[in-house]
Amino acid sequence: MNFAHSDNATSLIARMQSFMQEHVIPAEQTYAAQLRGGADWTQWQQPPVMEELKAKARAAGLWNLFLPEDGARLSNVDYAPLAEITGRSMIAPEVFNCNAPDTGNMEVLVKYGSEEQKQRWLKPLMAGEIRSAFCMTEPEVASSDATNMQASAILEGDEVVLNGRKWWSSGIGHPNCKVLIFMGLSDTSADKHQQHSMILVPLDTPGVKIERMLPVFHTLDEPYGHGEVSFTNVRLPLSSIIGGLGRGFEIAQGRLGPGRIHHCMRAIGAAEFALELLCKRAIQRVAFGKPLAKLGGNADIIANARMAIEQARLLTLKAAWMMDTVGVKGAMSEISQIKVIAPNVATQVIDAAMQMHGGAGLSDDFPLTALYAYARVLRIADGPDEVHRGLIAKLELKRQAKRLGISN
Amino acid sequence: MNFAHSDNATSLIARMQSFMQEHVIPAEQTYAAQLRGGADWTQWQQPPVMEELKAKARAAGLWNLFLPEDGARLSNVDYAPLAEITGRSMIAPEVFNCNAPDTGNMEVLVKYGSEEQKQRWLKPLMAGEIRSAFCMTEPEVASSDATNMQASAILEGDEVVLNGRKWWSSGIGHPNCKVLIFMGLSDTSADKHQQHSMILVPLDTPGVKIERMLPVFHTLDEPYGHGEVSFTNVRLPLSSIIGGLGRGFEIAQGRLGPGRIHHCMRAIGAAEFALELLCKRAIQRVAFGKPLAKLGGNADIIANARMAIEQARLLTLKAAWMMDTVGVKGAMSEISQIKVIAPNVATQVIDAAMQMHGGAGLSDDFPLTALYAYARVLRIADGPDEVHRGLIAKLELKRQAKRLGISN
Amino acid sequence: MNFAHSDNATSLIARMQSFMQEHVIPAEQTYAAQLRGGADWTQWQQPPVMEELKAKARAAGLWNLFLPEDGARLSNVDYAPLAEITGRSMIAPEVFNCNAPDTGNMEVLVKYGSEEQKQRWLKPLMAGEIRSAFCMTEPEVASSDATNMQASAILEGDEVVLNGRKWWSSGIGHPNCKVLIFMGLSDTSADKHQQHSMILVPLDTPGVKIERMLPVFHTLDEPYGHGEVSFTNVRLPLSSIIGGLGRGFEIAQGRLGPGRIHHCMRAIGAAEFALELLCKRAIQRVAFGKPLAKLGGNADIIANARMAIEQARLLTLKAAWMMDTVGVKGAMSEISQIKVIAPNVATQVIDAAMQMHGGAGLSDDFPLTALYAYARVLRIADGPDEVHRGLIAKLELKRQAKRLGISN
Amino acid sequence: MNFAHSDNATSLIARMQSFMQEHVIPAEQTYAAQLRGGADWTQWQQPPVMEELKAKARAAGLWNLFLPEDGARLSNVDYAPLAEITGRSMIAPEVFNCNAPDTGNMEVLVKYGSEEQKQRWLKPLMAGEIRSAFCMTEPEVASSDATNMQASAILEGDEVVLNGRKWWSSGIGHPNCKVLIFMGLSDTSADKHQQHSMILVPLDTPGVKIERMLPVFHTLDEPYGHGEVSFTNVRLPLSSIIGGLGRGFEIAQGRLGPGRIHHCMRAIGAAEFALELLCKRAIQRVAFGKPLAKLGGNADIIANARMAIEQARLLTLKAAWMMDTVGVKGAMSEISQIKVIAPNVATQVIDAAMQMHGGAGLSDDFPLTALYAYARVLRIADGPDEVHRGLIAKLELKRQAKRLGISN
Repeated sequence: MNFAHSDNATSLIARMQSFMQEHVIPAEQTYAAQLRGGADWTQWQQPPVMEELKAKARAAGLWNLFLPEDGARLSNVDYAPLAEITGRSMIAPEVFNCNAPDTGNMEVLVKYGSEEQKQRWLKPLMAGEIRSAFCMTEPEVASSDATNMQASAILEGDEVVLNGRKWWSSGIGHPNCKVLIFMGLSDTSADKHQQHSMILVPLDTPGVKIERMLPVFHTLDEPYGHGEVSFTNVRLPLSSIIGGLGRGFEIAQGRLGPGRIHHCMRAIGAAEFALELLCKRAIQRVAFGKPLAKLGGNADIIANARMAIEQARLLTLKAAWMMDTVGVKGAMSEISQIKVIAPNVATQVIDAAMQMHGGAGLSDDFPLTALYAYARVLRIADGPDEVHRGLIAKLELKRQAKRLGISN
Repeated sequence: MNFAHSDNATSLIARMQSFMQEHVIPAEQTYAAQLRGGADWTQWQQPPVMEELKAKARAAGLWNLFLPEDGARLSNVDYAPLAEITGRSMIAPEVFNCNAPDTGNMEVLVKYGSEEQKQRWLKPLMAGEIRSAFCMTEPEVASSDATNMQASAILEGDEVVLNGRKWWSSGIGHPNCKVLIFMGLSDTSADKHQQHSMILVPLDTPGVKIERMLPVFHTLDEPYGHGEVSFTNVRLPLSSIIGGLGRGFEIAQGRLGPGRIHHCMRAIGAAEFALELLCKRAIQRVAFGKPLAKLGGNADIIANARMAIEQARLLTLKAAWMMDTVGVKGAMSEISQIKVIAPNVATQVIDAAMQMHGGAGLSDDFPLTALYAYARVLRIADGPDEVHRGLIAKLELKRQAKRLGISN
Repeated sequence: MNFAHSDNATSLIARMQSFMQEHVIPAEQTYAAQLRGGADWTQWQQPPVMEELKAKARAAGLWNLFLPEDGARLSNVDYAPLAEITGRSMIAPEVFNCNAPDTGNMEVLVKYGSEEQKQRWLKPLMAGEIRSAFCMTEPEVASSDATNMQASAILEGDEVVLNGRKWWSSGIGHPNCKVLIFMGLSDTSADKHQQHSMILVPLDTPGVKIERMLPVFHTLDEPYGHGEVSFTNVRLPLSSIIGGLGRGFEIAQGRLGPGRIHHCMRAIGAAEFALELLCKRAIQRVAFGKPLAKLGGNADIIANARMAIEQARLLTLKAAWMMDTVGVKGAMSEISQIKVIAPNVATQVIDAAMQMHGGAGLSDDFPLTALYAYARVLRIADGPDEVHRGLIAKLELKRQAKRLGISN
Repeated sequence: MNFAHSDNATSLIARMQSFMQEHVIPAEQTYAAQLRGGADWTQWQQPPVMEELKAKARAAGLWNLFLPEDGARLSNVDYAPLAEITGRSMIAPEVFNCNAPDTGNMEVLVKYGSEEQKQRWLKPLMAGEIRSAFCMTEPEVASSDATNMQASAILEGDEVVLNGRKWWSSGIGHPNCKVLIFMGLSDTSADKHQQHSMILVPLDTPGVKIERMLPVFHTLDEPYGHGEVSFTNVRLPLSSIIGGLGRGFEIAQGRLGPGRIHHCMRAIGAAEFALELLCKRAIQRVAFGKPLAKLGGNADIIANARMAIEQARLLTLKAAWMMDTVGVKGAMSEISQIKVIAPNVATQVIDAAMQMHGGAGLSDDFPLTALYAYARVLRIADGPDEVHRGLIAKLELKRQAKRLGISN
């Protein structure tokens, strides 16, 4: 066993931390100031400072690090600590071209895309010239159960026709968002896991309409946004289908593994950052003649946060290592475990940090409510806690039954 | 022991519930639609439907019920269930002229106000013609420790001169807000509890400046708002002082008891409402072939919420009853207990309800994030959990030491 | 609403507290010393001091107070605080002839017993001359589901024949235990709730064999004991049947309501006592130059314990009041709620008290492990937490569905 | 990063698991049967089967594996998984000569013992011929604060004279226990960390008296026992002092690091074993027509246990790895973290397993209460949770202050 990062990871960690300190953190206020656009989301703009940051990150070789195949050739366990660093700033992931859902979409195209698809969409995505969205979740049904899906992607001659309504399509409001991946039912008579297809849809295709942007705790996460999107007889050539009709479920499964590691590491980064803010406030703020850190149970809050973060990080790193060594399937329980743990640890630590800051912690004077919203969403996105707990238990019972030689 | 409400309370509960169903709940969407004003908070407007609702409530005799002396002559334990009902809608408290901080300010004026002050401010407040704010908390210091206060209210000839900066002055953005109560230091050489004064300040007094509105989880709670307010050489006649110089601390203590009961009961109402939404969703939403209510640990979540609410409500009612029978001082531990319990129960139940709703629960399609923000603020406002826990423990240890005849 | 105890309850509380201080607590060590009998449980003896205490309690009018009909005619809400007081000492319930399972058995006989049964068993039980046991739970099946029961009580001519194996028959090891109530299946073809019967079985009936005493956390609770008992062709006259064949389930349901109140109030008494010990230790023990009460999060532990106890007590009292006013059926949810809450609060507070005592808290130098074992058993006995939570949720969903006019 | 065990550890894990299955687990009942000695602890006997098991373990090369220097030369991170395996059986540690406090005592002798001390005591301890005890904790003072210690070890001519009272001297009741290490004050005028000495005391030295054995949850843990021991003018030659007068504190610090890893890994082993029993019961026991595993929130309980164990194990392994790579001092926070986490996880998982077993889980039919007592003691032994949390927070605040360049 060796808990030290590889030399490559260690070096990248140092470089990325420097870059964050030198470029990203100082640019946050400029970004916020430049962001303010017009009265509604159709007027959102890409803050110019972001493009400057992207150029710098690319020049510094801190670009597309998430992508094993065509990027830095990093393993998941080597990339994980880098994802953690980006969790400290809401703008960092885009700076390094490592933000969801683009990362997952690029992975899909690398693995399943045709040459034409790669040329048209993967190339500009990897260059950070365009952004993308992913349309899976639907408003009318419990999307934690994928078999509930109602949207359709039906073959008609040499076209595939999309209909349905999706929501929580994150990033779709970004001015650079040019394409989305749509998931829909193609053949309800096929085997349960071969009914769905994934289709590449240019955002300006007739029939695609962004109905509104959904707020999360009253914030729209501009300029990314979480869209509700209707698809009405959207017609596309067959070359838009990713990997072939009926392979949607298979692609979705593979897409989620690394994405969950990324989200969890960012959540851990957010928690670590919140703990830093918490400690700083606890040291500097005085009440009843003492710094808050010395009052009542505040030391316990700090200790509990430290313990929770350490444990969550180690398990996430182990899940990443298992993905590298035994694959997504072999790491299924661990991936579900971190998917429950990391967002819960993050919400708890961030909530504790808000409390330590008093009213200020709930305002925009600190980034805590934004971090909280991000972490809270993760308890639902990519499968709610409840579904993951159910899966963990199922796998555990199966394993135990096998070990005991009893039927489950 | 008798856990039944008095006949009077029972009748008022029924009348208020009817009024809520018939008038308030149906008006919520109209209110929201009318609310949209201009680009910033200086252009907030009172939605006309609110004035209509207020007129109806007054006509129905559901007006100023919180005020023992001049209102309905209800005891705290009789008023408590009515406050709970208003917790179900963010607009309900104003409808019944029972919203903070006006309730506390009116109580202060009833008890400590001069005849002139009553005529000028109490009368229109009780008529719902104007609103008010309360300026105590300061941005630069931990206001959980009242002795940290830095703002000043200094006697200069026949004037009192106010300086300092306050924040979390809730309701100050309301177009009808015309007056605020300012708390500041008048004499730092006096006994610890006789240094502060409370001053009535017309909002348009020169030197009073609302610097900005503070968001809570990204919402400004318009048209009420939580203001940051600067006071620069604000000069007022001595007749603006409430109860006399140096009585600020005494007034503040008395002001908080009933207010905490009101807040806690509203939080319990919010929790009860969230549990209703949770159950409705759990019954109607289907995943994996079953309603959510029958999946995994969801039944436990419902049972735990029910138990938490029942217990919190009973303790809050008991605290109200103790205020009626032995006074604020005798109910000190119980009041601190409910101040910890009710907001925590509410945040937990509302959070569970958000989770049961999936992504929708975090959006504005349901009132859950608004309720959450309200309940979360309460874990800080009027003393953070930590300070109240400390007080509960102190009183407990004192009591136990006395019982055991040992020194504490 | 009135949270004050009735005059009668108030007076009895004072008398019982005095009696505890004057007689019961001082006798605990004598009792323990006298208890030591021979090498195994068949040689357990009734400590003579217990008979002295019983005589004194009876003389003081503090006898059979649990029994509404023929005892003190106390309502459940009036008896509850008395049960709480007895929770402070493991020997107190017997002193006042108020210990389980005798209380439940006496209630059954009062309500369902024939005149002959009352003369033979109820009279000496009420006089404290004999003790009794209750045989329901079985080792081979999950007894949380009553329909799992396997033991039989079959009519054969003018006899009823009992077969089966029971365990957790508490009190059966007591030297004074002379009779038990056996529950078994009489007719598996009958309606689900009319299959069982209850039979009075003298302990010396041929075929009744106490196989062993079950330890709980390594203690046998001598001289009461928790027995595993086999019944092999135990033949009894039909006059042994309580209330008639097939009424077992009905009797069991009615038996449990008051018993749960008693258990919960005793658990609350145990928690209150543990908090007293905790505070005493926290005040008197010094580490790092301060009393433990002033270190780290210990004040929070005390505050949390106080809040949990207050809430649990109020809900238990309300459940008792509901039993008095709307009956067991109307109080079903509340009874299940306290059955979950009180033992959980008690185990948590007692565990915290153990921790505050360091190693001593786990030894026999303090009564904490004995109290813990009692409270921990209650999380399983009379229905495990899980079953009660399930019932609470079921009732809640039913109520909400009805309110909403939707089907559940 | 590499989460795989080294080849050596992997091989030893396999061999030890086989040995456990083949020899230790099957011998547990024999051991229990042979254990029963006379009426009190002075008559406890070593069950003959234990000596047979020890001989087999030694022959199999599974002996003294804990001892880096003279044993298997295993690193802490390699030994940790072996310690976990021994946590599954209360008798396993002795079988492999890896049980506390002997392991710690042997480490002390290896590092600080004179040649004479090694010959006389270390040699037979490593051979498993004798056992030992460690006398540090005192009944009269809070021993979580080492500076509270009152026992003395005073130089008088060519002798050192011991006085004082110790308790929780585990293993002192074992028939093979021949020596103890006593810690006492030698010079209260010296620097705070140079006042204490450690002395080797043959158990039969005049003035050493075992006053009683302390029960833990009513069990004496025979034949080991937890003794309360008085020392009255115990005179020993200066050659009995370990490492020199005044070095007691230094030795104690070094002694605790590895011991805490061992305890934590055994606690994790106990938790893992409890989860196996829990799952087995959940699969096989039926209620309401389904296996318990499919009822209510039981799947969540299993998932939560799995997540807690995984995380605790990883952090404990990391702490072990840090001890190997940066030493005890560099691993201080991590060691305190696992000392809080592992016993808490273990008590929670074992408690959940007890609950899943119903009444049986609290009896001796399953090993759960014994495991629980072991894990519960660990929340106090070697520093209570509270002290470790305090230390974690202190180190965290120091680190954060340094990072921020602010004073703490």
